[in-house]
Amino acid sequence: MISNLNDIFSINSKGMKRSAIRELLKLTQRPEVISFAGGLPAPESFPVEELKDIIQEMMEKEPALALQYGATEGDMLLRKEIAKKYQKEGFDITVDNVIIVTASQQALDLVAKIFINRGDAVICGLPSYLGGLSAFNSYGADMHGIPLDDQGMSAELLEKKLAELKAKNITPKFIYTIPDFQNPAGITMPQKRREEILAIAKKYNVLILEDSPYRELRFEGEHVPTIFSLDNTGHVISLGTFSKIFAPGFRIGWVIAHPDIIDKIVVAKQATDLCTPPFTQRIAARYMEKGLIDKNIKGIVDSYREKRDGMLKALEEFMPKEITWTKPEGGLFLFVTCPEYMDTNELFKKAIEKNVAFVSGTSFYCDGEGKNTMRLNFSFCSKETNYEGIKRLAEAIKSELR
Amino acid sequence: MISNLNDIFSINSKGMKRSAIRELLKLTQRPEVISFAGGLPAPESFPVEELKDIIQEMMEKEPALALQYGATEGDMLLRKEIAKKYQKEGFDITVDNVIIVTASQQALDLVAKIFINRGDAVICGLPSYLGGLSAFNSYGADMHGIPLDDQGMSAELLEKKLAELKAKNITPKFIYTIPDFQNPAGITMPQKRREEILAIAKKYNVLILEDSPYRELRFEGEHVPTIFSLDNTGHVISLGTFSKIFAPGFRIGWVIAHPDIIDKIVVAKQATDLCTPPFTQRIAARYMEKGLIDKNIKGIVDSYREKRDGMLKALEEFMPKEITWTKPEGGLFLFVTCPEYMDTNELFKKAIEKNVAFVSGTSFYCDGEGKNTMRLNFSFCSKETNYEGIKRLAEAIKSELR
Repeated sequence: MISNLNDIFSINSKGMKRSAIRELLKLTQRPEVISFAGGLPAPESFPVEELKDIIQEMMEKEPALALQYGATEGDMLLRKEIAKKYQKEGFDITVDNVIIVTASQQALDLVAKIFINRGDAVICGLPSYLGGLSAFNSYGADMHGIPLDDQGMSAELLEKKLAELKAKNITPKFIYTIPDFQNPAGITMPQKRREEILAIAKKYNVLILEDSPYRELRFEGEHVPTIFSLDNTGHVISLGTFSKIFAPGFRIGWVIAHPDIIDKIVVAKQATDLCTPPFTQRIAARYMEKGLIDKNIKGIVDSYREKRDGMLKALEEFMPKEITWTKPEGGLFLFVTCPEYMDTNELFKKAIEKNVAFVSGTSFYCDGEGKNTMRLNFSFCSKETNYEGIKRLAEAIKSELR
Repeated sequence: MISNLNDIFSINSKGMKRSAIRELLKLTQRPEVISFAGGLPAPESFPVEELKDIIQEMMEKEPALALQYGATEGDMLLRKEIAKKYQKEGFDITVDNVIIVTASQQALDLVAKIFINRGDAVICGLPSYLGGLSAFNSYGADMHGIPLDDQGMSAELLEKKLAELKAKNITPKFIYTIPDFQNPAGITMPQKRREEILAIAKKYNVLILEDSPYRELRFEGEHVPTIFSLDNTGHVISLGTFSKIFAPGFRIGWVIAHPDIIDKIVVAKQATDLCTPPFTQRIAARYMEKGLIDKNIKGIVDSYREKRDGMLKALEEFMPKEITWTKPEGGLFLFVTCPEYMDTNELFKKAIEKNVAFVSGTSFYCDGEGKNTMRLNFSFCSKETNYEGIKRLAEAIKSELR
């Protein structure tokens, strides 16, 4: 071994932290633990039978294409299907606005790579998806957090922050936002707030990075237009993924953006992994082409709605009055707030003793706050297990109340 | 669109270039063009029938595992199979020395990410695999090229370069080398040269990054030990991949290294793509577990040997005496040297007129040299097509001879 390994790691890698969640997941894999910690889709949502047929057909008709290298931009059939899906929603895009990536996490990495120099400012929500923060951090971004209210990122505080930064001659590289059923908070931005955020971004000449992995999983109410579709100037980069509506094990996501930005992402991706697996891309393309995805989404929505309802009911039933939580209209998560004196990292140990797990909110706060909050996932476990888990969690919380 | 998009791209991304090869591949996709430009395995080498059975079995028995998120380190069964493969070759490793990556290109990206600060020195061969150069370049590496002789990277010139750099107080982050059937040169390092390079690396306290995608594809002679196996101190990071022996469309490779380095790569990979597709990983794991890979490699070796022989024969038959080429003992490529006054970028236009394509050598030289060289791939086309292609290429070359 070389004598100074720890010295020669790059500055950015020295700042990288293991994902608290992924490490927690290992701790919580004992079968007796009910884990609300992960962000895993329900395995029963995977369309196994339909996939069997599609794969068999693919292996009969086009194995050489599926097993060979593919274009960095992605499988053309899949790009067309994704463009079509957005066109149906009124997006003014073509395949030139679409690149396929190795799931959303790679999109976050590549967007960071093409924009962030060490020390560059980036805006995010307080709280925000941990994987986004890790990706930006891995290029040395200087994160500035904007608190969320019950309509998502505060437009007022965003403008205040951008004005402050402008006074110091700093323009952030982008504003990172998860407008639909936010991870971790479960909050959805109404259209008016989206329009305000977009107007502020334009005024200050800052790009918006809109991360929408849960968008299709709406349990009630009307879909709110994406920020991308409210813009018509190329000001927004929008991310989508199959991980929550089809199969995370395929690792397929996409970026929708102005062709000049897509072009730069393509060049960065060439040096990063050449291409996303053509094998899983082609399966996904055929699945979409056959029109099966909408049916699958409907099944997931029905199932997760019931699970959310069950978890909300259990929270009502078991939690002491000092505890509050968000009531998400979709997605996979809800967010719990405990009294300010409580530290959910400490609570975690008590919870594990009672065989229930969650993620402490601090992981999602770029400023280290959120000590009295936690994220709960309701998609993975069964309704019954969710109920039992909340009961155990409530007991752990009660033991920590003053 | 924001008003200054081109200004706000990161410094590293401004230096990224589109891969000449991947762009060329697009140009050469007209069916009448015989292309020696790519590095594609022969589609007839894909074990389609065996894969059908394995996939069917997987979708019956373990679909939830294959379709769900997986560990960042990779599928445990696959890591065990890969460790076993190396253990059989006498490597002293365990699963803790193995991480699965989204094919070798991601390994190159992650190694660059954890070691390279902008401006850091990295050593490579002249010539070297383009994808390696792109990955290092994307983090702002300062590349120093060491010429190859007929035994690979010159040990003498390597030591001279390291001494020169040391005098300036510069220690390169690593030495990048492709010891087996080098891409693009087709040269293999004998054991003695590997030992010399390793000794120099240890003397100057520099890591070695050993990239071995073609190692199993030896047509004749004895396997030479990897540099990793000649070392027993954790001084070498070794990369492998299924892309050339199984299916590039699965995008599966691996890194073998000291656990402290693997650990850092795991953390970097978490922020990059969370995990390599569990779906294709599990197929590969079952394929290895059934002991099918050796048979597949044997078939590929037999086929590529015949293709190489055919191409060497055609070169003998058609090329003017001013032209020389390497005679690889394995792999996918051979390297052609034209008279110094010739520019293969110019020649490319003539060749395309005659419906044959190659990659100009300049792409592989970090110092911009190699103008009179070209890389030819012999694995993808049939033996007959290779013959016809060399005939056309010889005509193009003759028209450019003085």
